[in-house]
Amino acid sequence: MKITLLTIFPEMCEAVLSESILGRARRAGLLDVRAVDIRPFSDAKHKNTDDYPFGGGAGMLMTPQPIAAAFRAVCGPSFSGKRIFLGPAGVPFTQRLAEELAKEEELVMLCGHYEGVDQRALDHYIDLEISLGDFILTGGELAALAVTDCIARLLPGVLGSDQSALEESFSREGLLEYPQYTRPRVFEDEEVPAVLLNGDHAKIARWRREQALLRTARLRPDMLEKAPLTDKERAWLSAQQEKGVEDG
Amino acid sequence: MKITLLTIFPEMCEAVLSESILGRARRAGLLDVRAVDIRPFSDAKHKNTDDYPFGGGAGMLMTPQPIAAAFRAVCGPSFSGKRIFLGPAGVPFTQRLAEELAKEEELVMLCGHYEGVDQRALDHYIDLEISLGDFILTGGELAALAVTDCIARLLPGVLGSDQSALEESFSREGLLEYPQYTRPRVFEDEEVPAVLLNGDHAKIARWRREQALLRTARLRPDMLEKAPLTDKERAWLSAQQEKGVEDG
Repeated sequence: MKITLLTIFPEMCEAVLSESILGRARRAGLLDVRAVDIRPFSDAKHKNTDDYPFGGGAGMLMTPQPIAAAFRAVCGPSFSGKRIFLGPAGVPFTQRLAEELAKEEELVMLCGHYEGVDQRALDHYIDLEISLGDFILTGGELAALAVTDCIARLLPGVLGSDQSALEESFSREGLLEYPQYTRPRVFEDEEVPAVLLNGDHAKIARWRREQALLRTARLRPDMLEKAPLTDKERAWLSAQQEKGVEDG
Repeated sequence: MKITLLTIFPEMCEAVLSESILGRARRAGLLDVRAVDIRPFSDAKHKNTDDYPFGGGAGMLMTPQPIAAAFRAVCGPSFSGKRIFLGPAGVPFTQRLAEELAKEEELVMLCGHYEGVDQRALDHYIDLEISLGDFILTGGELAALAVTDCIARLLPGVLGSDQSALEESFSREGLLEYPQYTRPRVFEDEEVPAVLLNGDHAKIARWRREQALLRTARLRPDMLEKAPLTDKERAWLSAQQEKGVEDG
């Protein structure tokens, strides 16, 4: 899979793309990802990429010409992927959308800056606008990097096979994760739950499932409505909630 | 305002914090933000920060000891801010939450990694868990950086005063932004809307408001329900929708 970020801050993007799991995936050849600087594509004398808005208003906008030239350079005639803009009017980014995008051969993501982007650049060159959430960032880079990170970890080989499996389970079940514990056994006078120490794996699995159900019910009832629970689980959860049992 | 990120990837965070508007705000002394490496706080011989989960399961967890030590070092006895964990079970991050957090004196954000964090570290040291959205990242760094970026741009002086004003207006109105245009006047045979060229500012303001209404109605009807529209605007919008008029 190939992912290209079009940005006026390529070094910042490269710093993120070179680290952690993304960097490792990249070095292992599992993901071809790069940041391309928009500025050299500008026809302007000083390689400007911004200008004043028509009709007045605050701030500067990204001009369409360098964006168009960058897309033409990056997406050859055989390009069959998706051209994405990270912006507030986009469809909300979710794990499900990440799974869809992970099936594409190639993604090119435009990172906006200043007060916005000329609408014609978006209308002529963008296939899909994605919003990371209902909050405003100073630029699209962090959003594009988050989308890249989320997609990358779904690609074969990027995570260890064990972790992959865990992830699929989480996605499929649509629940929050159960609480997890590691060493030391006693930390600040608090012991790990005894059930995790007795080696009874069926019991551990049941406890974790129950914790995930309780936590999701407490923190994200909206997720619970859509989750594929058995009738028995729904009944158990109602009984717990009536008893006022708390998660954790 | 002071923001500290606790992370096992401090260099990646610093690269982002040094660039763009965040970097400028930092150099101008408008925001005291830094990434602190968790690893040196580990008591383990090789400064490990991860270990196997009790009860079995895939992947490694962050151990509580280095996290606790880092929080104790960073949050002195006079600490009166918020200690935040970026994780999937958190409250959804929104512009409204960013506005609340921008009023704090100090924030410390823990970036999770591996398959998760020992629950006791979270229970003992975290005041607020925030989720960037319903998607899974390989670590908390990009989420913490996005939250930092979103908060930073709300601080006095970080954006120019003009841009600040625009932002407030956007937040208050709860609508998507109207389409924006900059030079050239004709781009790929498409001219900017004529209304933006005639210098009639009342007319421009009305056109922009109408475009924001149409676009929000088309792309984010959920936002429109909560937005403070006048009765006249609601009536106009219904009439437009009946006519099948399209945005843009």
